Amino acid sequence: MASVLTPQAQDFPRWYQDVVAKAELAENGPVRGTQIIRPWGTAIWERMQAEVDARIKIAGAQNVNLPLFIPESYLNREAEHVEGFSPELAVVTHAGGKQLDEPVVVRPTSETLFGESMSKWIQSYRDLPLLLNQWCNVVRWEMRTRLFLRSSELLWQEGHTAHATREDAAAYARQILRDVYREFMVDVLAMPIIAGLKTPGERFPGAIDTMTCEGMMADGKALQMGTSHELGQNFAKAFDIQFLDATGARPHAWTTSWGASTRMVGGLIMCHGDDAGLRLPPRLAPTQVVVLAIKEEAADKAHEIAGSLRAAGVRVSVDDRTDVAFGRRAVAWEL
Amino acid sequence: MASVLTPQAQDFPRWYQDVVAKAELAENGPVRGTQIIRPWGTAIWERMQAEVDARIKIAGAQNVNLPLFIPESYLNREAEHVEGFSPELAVVTHAGGKQLDEPVVVRPTSETLFGESMSKWIQSYRDLPLLLNQWCNVVRWEMRTRLFLRSSELLWQEGHTAHATREDAAAYARQILRDVYREFMVDVLAMPIIAGLKTPGERFPGAIDTMTCEGMMADGKALQMGTSHELGQNFAKAFDIQFLDATGARPHAWTTSWGASTRMVGGLIMCHGDDAGLRLPPRLAPTQVVVLAIKEEAADKAHEIAGSLRAAGVRVSVDDRTDVAFGRRAVAWEL
Repeated sequence: MASVLTPQAQDFPRWYQDVVAKAELAENGPVRGTQIIRPWGTAIWERMQAEVDARIKIAGAQNVNLPLFIPESYLNREAEHVEGFSPELAVVTHAGGKQLDEPVVVRPTSETLFGESMSKWIQSYRDLPLLLNQWCNVVRWEMRTRLFLRSSELLWQEGHTAHATREDAAAYARQILRDVYREFMVDVLAMPIIAGLKTPGERFPGAIDTMTCEGMMADGKALQMGTSHELGQNFAKAFDIQFLDATGARPHAWTTSWGASTRMVGGLIMCHGDDAGLRLPPRLAPTQVVVLAIKEEAADKAHEIAGSLRAAGVRVSVDDRTDVAFGRRAVAWEL
Repeated sequence: MASVLTPQAQDFPRWYQDVVAKAELAENGPVRGTQIIRPWGTAIWERMQAEVDARIKIAGAQNVNLPLFIPESYLNREAEHVEGFSPELAVVTHAGGKQLDEPVVVRPTSETLFGESMSKWIQSYRDLPLLLNQWCNVVRWEMRTRLFLRSSELLWQEGHTAHATREDAAAYARQILRDVYREFMVDVLAMPIIAGLKTPGERFPGAIDTMTCEGMMADGKALQMGTSHELGQNFAKAFDIQFLDATGARPHAWTTSWGASTRMVGGLIMCHGDDAGLRLPPRLAPTQVVVLAIKEEAADKAHEIAGSLRAAGVRVSVDDRTDVAFGRRAVAWEL
């Protein structure tokens, strides 16, 4: 196999690039920093989405779809975030054939829109907790990009919740870290995960506490795979998220936010892959078994075996391209 | 109920707006023409996505994720499409804190990216048919917008396929119209659908044949719910999609494209809704049964009933908010 991939021990980042390219997971898009996620890469991401989404729903959150475009003025609401994001923003100045009166920003997160919506949707304590999530694309104009790990556009989910008390918000942020992210990463991705707190210096801007699931990669480094933030009342104050409590007062809500992205695909590759290529844990793999027919006469038998595996709930593919050399097909599937 | 919704007979478009707002399906976003799809609207769309996606996979297509941004120069490849889309485009001129050398366009469709990718990925007849699909957001700067029916950003799937022969492409475009769109709309959405050919004047630019599924609305009008196009070799010629055939020649491929969007949610509302509100067909409804507890003592019983329904595979919700008047809750759920 040495001829197909750069060995990990020789150059790990290069090995990673080779696997992503040779296993046909993704490639660069024409606009700098964008990526084309090919069918295999998309199938892996879809399996991740399904597993994470099911856990988010069990945790009681509902999905919404907020818009791609944000008025530039919204971003000034959160001074701290502008600080963090401004140089990374993509700005639409022309649309409908003419210059816009106010430029619109392509969302770097949907945070400001969640803030505005929550401020409208929350009236009283009866509306709390409000547990929302969104699957979408976000854009951050990155200078140095690597497929799946850092790209100008990434696919992710972002959860945003509002609670009546600090304790409730803190408990929910921890529940997401533990029951959604860590549980998924350990049980489905079969990865060694260290879950814990970020140092104050590494906290998300505006957060009073940031928790993370760090995955351990084959080169001994850690990769941030998912984060969950307690935002205190900072975010609610910036967006006027207040509620009528049982005593008639109008306190600000306590909020959380949490996200995980296509970066998990990169983490999965770097955690399990070896010099022969990609290795996917069985619970995640889009294809768990491949039946290769070596001679044309065996094609029917291969389909028959695949059929009984499929009936037993196994995700199976058949390769009956007997006009392609067996060795070549075996290497390609192993990638 | 007359006080909650404008009656259909009095003003159908107004009734539609009322249902979308009162049933909390969607509302306008802050940037003109964008929409916020709320939890109920999103749950309906997710059920549609799951049902359509399963049928697309049965038809053999694989999902990919192509980027949001397209170089402006790409759009000049298809003169006919620029003609069609130019005034509707949103253009990013600034990113990463400075002006871009070449502006990038927010995809109005992913067509040009599919074209470029197919031209790279297809080498020989062995790579055909290449059957691809994508779920994503696209942007068309619309002047007059209506929630779900016409918006600046819409969520959709767009399928793009390449075939070795005209017959194969034609058969596939028909298969998608029949086995994916019509079958889903009739069997799951329970809608009266007329499937057929568009007149040459209504064809998609560049298509040699456009087929459509038209849904019949309660006001007697038809709404286009999904289209499937035979693009002949026009698209393959614009993007150099050629393949080595068994004789050693390099003909252009025959391609198709097909799409359905969040507009289907609007169609579903206008087809089945009545003066009491939304009516969803059971196979689609995110919630099929609501168990309402009238008195506090009945809450346990309500959850018990819900439990046995859930065990029988029914999607069920429990409403035990006995501190809210029963009549108010009944009206709200009926919406």
